Amino acid sequence: MNRIALVTVGDELLNGAVVDTSTAWLGDQLALEGYALVISISVQDELSAISDAILSAIARADAVIVSGGLGPTSDDLTRLGVARAARVEVAQRKELVELITARYALRNMQVPSQALVMADLPIGASALINNSGSAPGIFMEIESVPLFALPGVPHEMRDMFVSEVLPKLRKRFSGVRQHTFIVRVALLGESAVSESLRDWESNLPSGVSVAYLASLGDVEVKISSESARQAEEGSTLAADLIGDSVYAIDEA
Amino acid sequence: MNRIALVTVGDELLNGAVVDTSTAWLGDQLALEGYALVISISVQDELSAISDAILSAIARADAVIVSGGLGPTSDDLTRLGVARAARVEVAQRKELVELITARYALRNMQVPSQALVMADLPIGASALINNSGSAPGIFMEIESVPLFALPGVPHEMRDMFVSEVLPKLRKRFSGVRQHTFIVRVALLGESAVSESLRDWESNLPSGVSVAYLASLGDVEVKISSESARQAEEGSTLAADLIGDSVYAIDEA
Repeated sequence: MNRIALVTVGDELLNGAVVDTSTAWLGDQLALEGYALVISISVQDELSAISDAILSAIARADAVIVSGGLGPTSDDLTRLGVARAARVEVAQRKELVELITARYALRNMQVPSQALVMADLPIGASALINNSGSAPGIFMEIESVPLFALPGVPHEMRDMFVSEVLPKLRKRFSGVRQHTFIVRVALLGESAVSESLRDWESNLPSGVSVAYLASLGDVEVKISSESARQAEEGSTLAADLIGDSVYAIDEA
Repeated sequence: MNRIALVTVGDELLNGAVVDTSTAWLGDQLALEGYALVISISVQDELSAISDAILSAIARADAVIVSGGLGPTSDDLTRLGVARAARVEVAQRKELVELITARYALRNMQVPSQALVMADLPIGASALINNSGSAPGIFMEIESVPLFALPGVPHEMRDMFVSEVLPKLRKRFSGVRQHTFIVRVALLGESAVSESLRDWESNLPSGVSVAYLASLGDVEVKISSESARQAEEGSTLAADLIGDSVYAIDEA
C-alpha cells in the first residue's frame, strides 16, 4: 500500500485552542482510496519546525500532504517552509497576483498588498486551485516525493483535497483497497481475547493484519487484508476461537 | 518556555476511525502550567515507527509524552518502542506482575497470561501508576530527556497525566505562564488586519508574539507574552491600529 504522510501546521493545534479533525478526515479518505496514512506531524507556526517536519515526512512516505499556514498573515510560514525543505527560494507568480486581485475585485474590494504574499510560491512549484478561499495551494516534488500543501481551514482543505490532490494521487498510485472485518466482543477483557487468538495470530498468512480497539465493556478485533475473502475467513476463524462472547461480525 | 513533545500511537488515529482529542487536551493542560507543546507526532502500531518518533521527539523537546500502545494485545508495541529508542531490552517486573494479578483478583478473575506482558518494562524505566486501568505507564530518561508513556484510552491518559506526570514535570521545570490577549475583529479580512499591523509587528519587543486565527467573518489576533502588562499593552496598540472593526479585547 502506498504510504502517505501528513504535516499539519498551526499554534492553535498544539495549545489546546482547536481539536485537529483534518487527520481523521484525511485518514478516512485515503483509506477509501487504498492508501495508508502512516504518520501525522503537527507543528507550530515556526519556519524550521515546518521544514524539519516536511523532511521527516518525505523520508517516510510516497507522498506528503501539508495542511495550514498558507494564509496572508505573518504567522503563515508554510510557503517558506516548503521552499526551505526543497532548498529553493520563493518568487511571486504573476498569474497568482492576477487571480488574487480578481477574487477581491469580485467583492468590489481593493486587494491589500499583504494579501499578495499568497502569490509567492517556491521556485519549481505549481499552484493548486482554491475554489473556496483566496490562498492557493502548492504542489511540488521534493526528492522525487510529491508534496501537496493545502489551506488549514477545514472546508478549504477538504475541497482542495478532493478537486486537486485526489486526481493527482490516483494518476500516480493505484491504491490497493484493504478489506476489513470487525469481530465485536462483549464482556471479555482485551487480554483474554488476545490470548485466545495468540496461536492463530502467530501463523497468519502474509498480508493479513490484526488490530484491537478496546472501549468500555467491548473489544473490537479488526482483521484486514487486500483480499476480501482472506479478511472474511480470518474474521470467522477468530470469532470461533473467541467463542460465545462474540456478538457480531461486520464488514468495515 | 519549556518545550514538550507528544507522540500518539495507534492505527485508529490514522485510518479515520478516531479523532485525536489527546493532543488538544494535553496542549491546553501544558499551556496552563506554562509549558509549550511544540510538536505532536501520530504513528501506527509499528515498532520502528514508534521508536523513530520517540527519537525525533527527544531531539526537539525538554520532555516527551507518549500516549497509546501500552495494552496487552499483539499490536501494543510502545513498551518495545521505548526500549528500542533507549537501546535497552525489556524485562518483566515482579511487582507489576503482582499488581496486575491483584487487579484481576479484585474482580474474581484469574489473570490471563497475555495480560502479564503489561508487567514488562524497558530496563532502567520505572512504572507510572494507573488508577483507572490495568496497563502501568512508563517513566524513563533517554539521552537525559524525561519520557512519560501513558495509556491511549482518554480517561486513563488524563488521570495518569494529572496524578503522575504533572508533579514530576513541576518538580523539574518551573513553567513560565504566557499571558494572552485576544483582539477580535469583524468584517475585515485577514490580509487587511495584518497589513494594518505590519509595521508594529516588525518592531515588537522580544518575548511578545502575535498569532492570527481567521474564521467565517471574524479574525482573532492573539498577542502573547510572559509579561501580562506587555501582552495587554500590545493588544491595546493593535486594536488602535486596526480601528473601528475591533469589537472586543479579551484576556485568554
